[in-house]
Amino acid sequence: MTTDPQLLSNPRSDRVKQVAALGRRAVRARTGRFLVEGPQAVRELLAYAESSARELYVTTEAEKRHTGIVGRAEESGVVVYRCTDVVLAAMADTGSPQGMLGVADRVDVPLAEALAFVGEGEFAVVLTHVRDPGNAGTVLRGADAFGAAAVLVSDASVDVYNPKVVRSTVGSLFHLPVSVGTPVTELLNACRERGIRLLAADGTGTTMLPDVDLTGPHAWVMGNEAWGLEPEVLELCDEVVAIPIQRAESLNLAMAATVCLHASASARTR
Amino acid sequence: MTTDPQLLSNPRSDRVKQVAALGRRAVRARTGRFLVEGPQAVRELLAYAESSARELYVTTEAEKRHTGIVGRAEESGVVVYRCTDVVLAAMADTGSPQGMLGVADRVDVPLAEALAFVGEGEFAVVLTHVRDPGNAGTVLRGADAFGAAAVLVSDASVDVYNPKVVRSTVGSLFHLPVSVGTPVTELLNACRERGIRLLAADGTGTTMLPDVDLTGPHAWVMGNEAWGLEPEVLELCDEVVAIPIQRAESLNLAMAATVCLHASASARTR
Repeated sequence: MTTDPQLLSNPRSDRVKQVAALGRRAVRARTGRFLVEGPQAVRELLAYAESSARELYVTTEAEKRHTGIVGRAEESGVVVYRCTDVVLAAMADTGSPQGMLGVADRVDVPLAEALAFVGEGEFAVVLTHVRDPGNAGTVLRGADAFGAAAVLVSDASVDVYNPKVVRSTVGSLFHLPVSVGTPVTELLNACRERGIRLLAADGTGTTMLPDVDLTGPHAWVMGNEAWGLEPEVLELCDEVVAIPIQRAESLNLAMAATVCLHASASARTR
Repeated sequence: MTTDPQLLSNPRSDRVKQVAALGRRAVRARTGRFLVEGPQAVRELLAYAESSARELYVTTEAEKRHTGIVGRAEESGVVVYRCTDVVLAAMADTGSPQGMLGVADRVDVPLAEALAFVGEGEFAVVLTHVRDPGNAGTVLRGADAFGAAAVLVSDASVDVYNPKVVRSTVGSLFHLPVSVGTPVTELLNACRERGIRLLAADGTGTTMLPDVDLTGPHAWVMGNEAWGLEPEVLELCDEVVAIPIQRAESLNLAMAATVCLHASASARTR
């Protein structure tokens, strides 16, 4: 038996440690890179943000199952490394990246560029203080599914490059313009200056969703599940909108966002 | 220093083991009891299903914070046990039940009884093969929020008394009639016999959600996130309904259920 010299097999090597370190926000901020875990996310990265893809780590078994993805990566100039299951597990944030893990350069765009997409009849999503990675991921998926023009993420929200967010977006992070890191007040003011109506989604709202005019350019402002929206955020919004429900406290942030974004998509269709 | 003789402090006692065993489906099925973790869930249990509440385990610290809940439990004839953090952790399925854990008798009702709630202008939710506890919990929350008359769970779905489901429903399990354990075909046929239109929620559907008549009694049939609905289920449904989206595969089961249930609630309001 011989060992393949090109197969990465040492989970304690510097390379493995460097990739694993991308699980930490500070390292992502410093390097401008992030982890893309699993075949589906890697496929979407290559399809929608090819120029950001840098490295692909793949086990022998996963390479057999996903020859298309690996071939596409090689064509795109991505450096492909074969590695053992142990090495892949040491690099990944999730328990099971299904044999495949990519490293990519950040894909966000400057705020002004993202805002330029929010034209007549378009809508955006603003995350002010969304901290839960799963919620942020679901909101991104919803924005993608219902055709939002952009997602604008404040500096007080979870890092969209957190591996848990990337995983839960299932590729949506690569499908539409996302801006990150703007302070909340600056973000909301930038929207107002462009004539984008700010609609706060909040269970305490006095305007009911069916009564809101969703035809002009607007943005849904989502807060933190536990707190709702902060008073200074509500003050900057044009309307505070509630979803008519039978019982209070029965919708979570992800569900509320889904309903609001679907309403915007429906208004556009009509 | 003395030890309070009434304080449960031995995490290896038979009582603690018996409560902890309710984390297992087989034990729940045999005893007809389940865990209700955390102050919010216990509060909802006492408010909506008081007669099912049996035991309450509470730490000294949590008792001080939640005197109202403990008082209500004692008034309701629930046996209240004080215990240490270590004992509570040994009994709980979740990492942090916030100092409080209840044991309750199952709260489901027979299928015929649940179906009787689905009258003119009402709608229900059917879970055929929903396996993920978080998804099942979100669907239950949505059913509650949007005023579904009943939730009907097949024997092929996750146990609604799984502590993860109970936790993620945040009390909704106690708010509306839920039936469990019916084989899928029998469940769907029982709905049909009562004149309830069966609407399969499935991304492959050819009927678009805005075109569906939601005024008569109907039930949303939800499958498994990974598979979608099985052919034999689709065959028994009156319509296979898709949500208009910009990109395929971008909605998960919980999001799709939220949109469909909101649509039913909106149809009733109009």
